[in-house]
Amino acid sequence: MPEPFRTSRRVEFHETDMAGIVHFSNFFRYMEFAEQEFLRARGLSVAWKEGHGERGGFPRVSAACDYLKPIRFEDVVEIAATLTRIGRKSVTYEFEFTCRGEAIARGRMSAACCRGTPGGGLQSIEIPDDIRAKLEAV
Amino acid sequence: MPEPFRTSRRVEFHETDMAGIVHFSNFFRYMEFAEQEFLRARGLSVAWKEGHGERGGFPRVSAACDYLKPIRFEDVVEIAATLTRIGRKSVTYEFEFTCRGEAIARGRMSAACCRGTPGGGLQSIEIPDDIRAKLEAV
Amino acid sequence: MPEPFRTSRRVEFHETDMAGIVHFSNFFRYMEFAEQEFLRARGLSVAWKEGHGERGGFPRVSAACDYLKPIRFEDVVEIAATLTRIGRKSVTYEFEFTCRGEAIARGRMSAACCRGTPGGGLQSIEIPDDIRAKLEAV
Amino acid sequence: MPEPFRTSRRVEFHETDMAGIVHFSNFFRYMEFAEQEFLRARGLSVAWKEGHGERGGFPRVSAACDYLKPIRFEDVVEIAATLTRIGRKSVTYEFEFTCRGEAIARGRMSAACCRGTPGGGLQSIEIPDDIRAKLEAV
Repeated sequence: MPEPFRTSRRVEFHETDMAGIVHFSNFFRYMEFAEQEFLRARGLSVAWKEGHGERGGFPRVSAACDYLKPIRFEDVVEIAATLTRIGRKSVTYEFEFTCRGEAIARGRMSAACCRGTPGGGLQSIEIPDDIRAKLEAV
Repeated sequence: MPEPFRTSRRVEFHETDMAGIVHFSNFFRYMEFAEQEFLRARGLSVAWKEGHGERGGFPRVSAACDYLKPIRFEDVVEIAATLTRIGRKSVTYEFEFTCRGEAIARGRMSAACCRGTPGGGLQSIEIPDDIRAKLEAV
Repeated sequence: MPEPFRTSRRVEFHETDMAGIVHFSNFFRYMEFAEQEFLRARGLSVAWKEGHGERGGFPRVSAACDYLKPIRFEDVVEIAATLTRIGRKSVTYEFEFTCRGEAIARGRMSAACCRGTPGGGLQSIEIPDDIRAKLEAV
Repeated sequence: MPEPFRTSRRVEFHETDMAGIVHFSNFFRYMEFAEQEFLRARGLSVAWKEGHGERGGFPRVSAACDYLKPIRFEDVVEIAATLTRIGRKSVTYEFEFTCRGEAIARGRMSAACCRGTPGGGLQSIEIPDDIRAKLEAV
């Protein structure tokens, strides 16, 4: 298992709800943020352009989160993201959220490699070799 | 298994992303919307006050979604929500999302019955009898 | 001045913040919602396609809101939207938000008619005649 | 006029919309982010507790934004925030957004100093002296 990629962010006011805690849906945006940072560190992007101007990216096929403890405004969340599987056409990440050393939440997300079709649709494709090589780089 | 509770909503512009489809995180807000409507139809609320002025509610302990097909701006999403389990302290819902008769996504969400503590925290409690009775009503 | 277009929505849980009220940024999403409903009632859309497959729409050039009273989870907000100006290339709306008969907020929004350029940019254009005719219909 | 407070952030995927640009409502969240960073740099917070455990904060009374150019996924937005007025009970900020040296948007936001009332309401109060002193510090 590779070392996780680590990033962090501070809870913003609009991310809280009337229970005084971060709304559960925002953990999925935090996962995307960590994925984004992970990909950027490898010269990749959640949304990319191929050599011939085609648009592509990694739309999600599944996402899940278990919530252990709430976090609040101005808390700093540490996110450890691990690319646990690189398949032929999709990738899977796992995420550990901690705050002040305590486990807060655990997430999983799978994304399929897709390219945009002329009609505005999305078509699943094999992960191109150059992208695969960058994903596999330690 | 009880008949699912059915509701629907139209995709709003701000819910789309640059891929031209509804951002995956918004399906969790759609689940909460359906849960909210389901509870309101039973005289309950995601966030409630007990007789003595205590605040309580149903914060989520887990949430998951599988995405089958993208949906786009102005699409009408049908949501079928089923309360599949009422435990001692928590509840579990399953959600089927369809659009024009096609399956779009499937979700699951568990929520724990909690009351607010004086310090602003949340404490898991047994589901009060009056709330349980309303949840169990067909 | 024409009669305002009226719509309403119920406050969702994720729209609240830790102050227990609707986060101020969400009023701009409520304005967009009302604009969207207004346009749909006229057979138009915030995002449209021209006859030749070009993409276009009405990106905002300015938006403002004054907040008079807070609203909370499950409140029903009435929104009265008035198209106060149809210029050569842009439109201006005003919005009155009320809840239980009380004024809650007042908003304004201007949007420019634009078409997408091949490179993914946006270019301001004169409002096409067929769109103008529908906007001007009472 | 004091030197503006400067901060920046990178556009996240979920902040874009189907036009491929940052949704206009998110600029208000960017303003709040800058306000939050500005206050934290002075030992203050958008949401605070008084010495006696009372809750207070700075809910917005008005907000406005003019949009000059769109920004896109992964763009880095520079935000210059200036506290242009400290009144008896409220404050006003102005914001300049730039990206790669180009002006992107201009915003304004006023916020009233409020404390929470026992019933869950918000009451406007004079800005406490210790908070005023920190706001006025260069």
